[in-house]
Amino acid sequence: MNSQIMEALQWRYAVKQFDTQKKVSEADWKVLAESLRLAPSSYGLQPWKFIVVQNPSLRAELRKNSWNQSQVTDCSHYVVLTTRTKMSEQDVQKYIAKISQVRGVPQESLKGYHDMMIGDVVKGPRSEIIQWWAQRQAYIAFGFLMETAALMKIDTCPIEGLEPKAYDQILKLEGTGYATVAACAVGYRHRDDKNAQAKKVRFDAQDVIEIR
Amino acid sequence: MNSQIMEALQWRYAVKQFDTQKKVSEADWKVLAESLRLAPSSYGLQPWKFIVVQNPSLRAELRKNSWNQSQVTDCSHYVVLTTRTKMSEQDVQKYIAKISQVRGVPQESLKGYHDMMIGDVVKGPRSEIIQWWAQRQAYIAFGFLMETAALMKIDTCPIEGLEPKAYDQILKLEGTGYATVAACAVGYRHRDDKNAQAKKVRFDAQDVIEIR
Repeated sequence: MNSQIMEALQWRYAVKQFDTQKKVSEADWKVLAESLRLAPSSYGLQPWKFIVVQNPSLRAELRKNSWNQSQVTDCSHYVVLTTRTKMSEQDVQKYIAKISQVRGVPQESLKGYHDMMIGDVVKGPRSEIIQWWAQRQAYIAFGFLMETAALMKIDTCPIEGLEPKAYDQILKLEGTGYATVAACAVGYRHRDDKNAQAKKVRFDAQDVIEIR
Repeated sequence: MNSQIMEALQWRYAVKQFDTQKKVSEADWKVLAESLRLAPSSYGLQPWKFIVVQNPSLRAELRKNSWNQSQVTDCSHYVVLTTRTKMSEQDVQKYIAKISQVRGVPQESLKGYHDMMIGDVVKGPRSEIIQWWAQRQAYIAFGFLMETAALMKIDTCPIEGLEPKAYDQILKLEGTGYATVAACAVGYRHRDDKNAQAKKVRFDAQDVIEIR
């Protein structure tokens, strides 16, 4: 497994040109979707929603608000990462109900956990930075999506160069409590994509990993 | 590979109790470290430093500032994720120099890219939220670390429940331009850790993944 992981990490790059003819299969997509859904998040709260935009006219609109990057329209699956703009008591309650259901424990037994979350993300200091907190969580899932894809020899291009407010309008997110933070184009590289040959640029290990 | 990934995603959980006797081997650690180093980031800027704290007295100090969570002292490798608090022209220049070196292209040919980054993360709108932007990038690497570990049957526990300012003091980060955002305990679960048996709680796919 170690060498397969190393190979995938080296093989991955931010695709510039996707092959419009090659689509991710339904079976492969399920694994990618599960890697988003099963990603960890703070408290397990999953303050996210992933919107997979497959409609060509929606894609065209989004591309206009993404510096006209061709990946938006040319990839197989276009995943928009959206996150909670604030966390409410209902958000926490929904999660508590899910824990209770999945683990078969009474909700009352989760009161301590419930109150801890309320005291942090709803009413505590974290509530003031909740947008950024939620975005951080979504980027864990973002990482899971890209690594999973690379292991499956499926390409991706992470996209932060987009207008979040325009995305929110196009995707009708206003008033839903979710807002766009980034997107990920998923598919297969075009054989002419020169970026595939460019050497990966990373700082040396000793510059970014320090042992104390 | 698909079934191996699914298995790893299901196997992973946030470890509560680590086995203090089991250490990640040097060969395995190298793969984990590379998954941090090779993770993608916006523009490729890598606005992060990962501090692996192995000194027991430093670990004890950090634990005091992490709600006394035992994972801090009991895990094999304790990785503190730190990120740039702002991005300077020097940061961008250092990266441009690295691209030039790795790809064998003159720095002058990268001027357009240089100026674009300066106009965004150093002087543009993104500079005002740079701390959050940098943290988001680090969480991609955070995701890579946890997924890589799970694939290797190595356990992790993501830790946001810590006092960043206290960490910064203990790790002497003040004045370095880096600040703590989170940590990840890495090692092997203790066979008595009851959390390993708890069912994973996730919202249903249709609640978090929407196809348009």
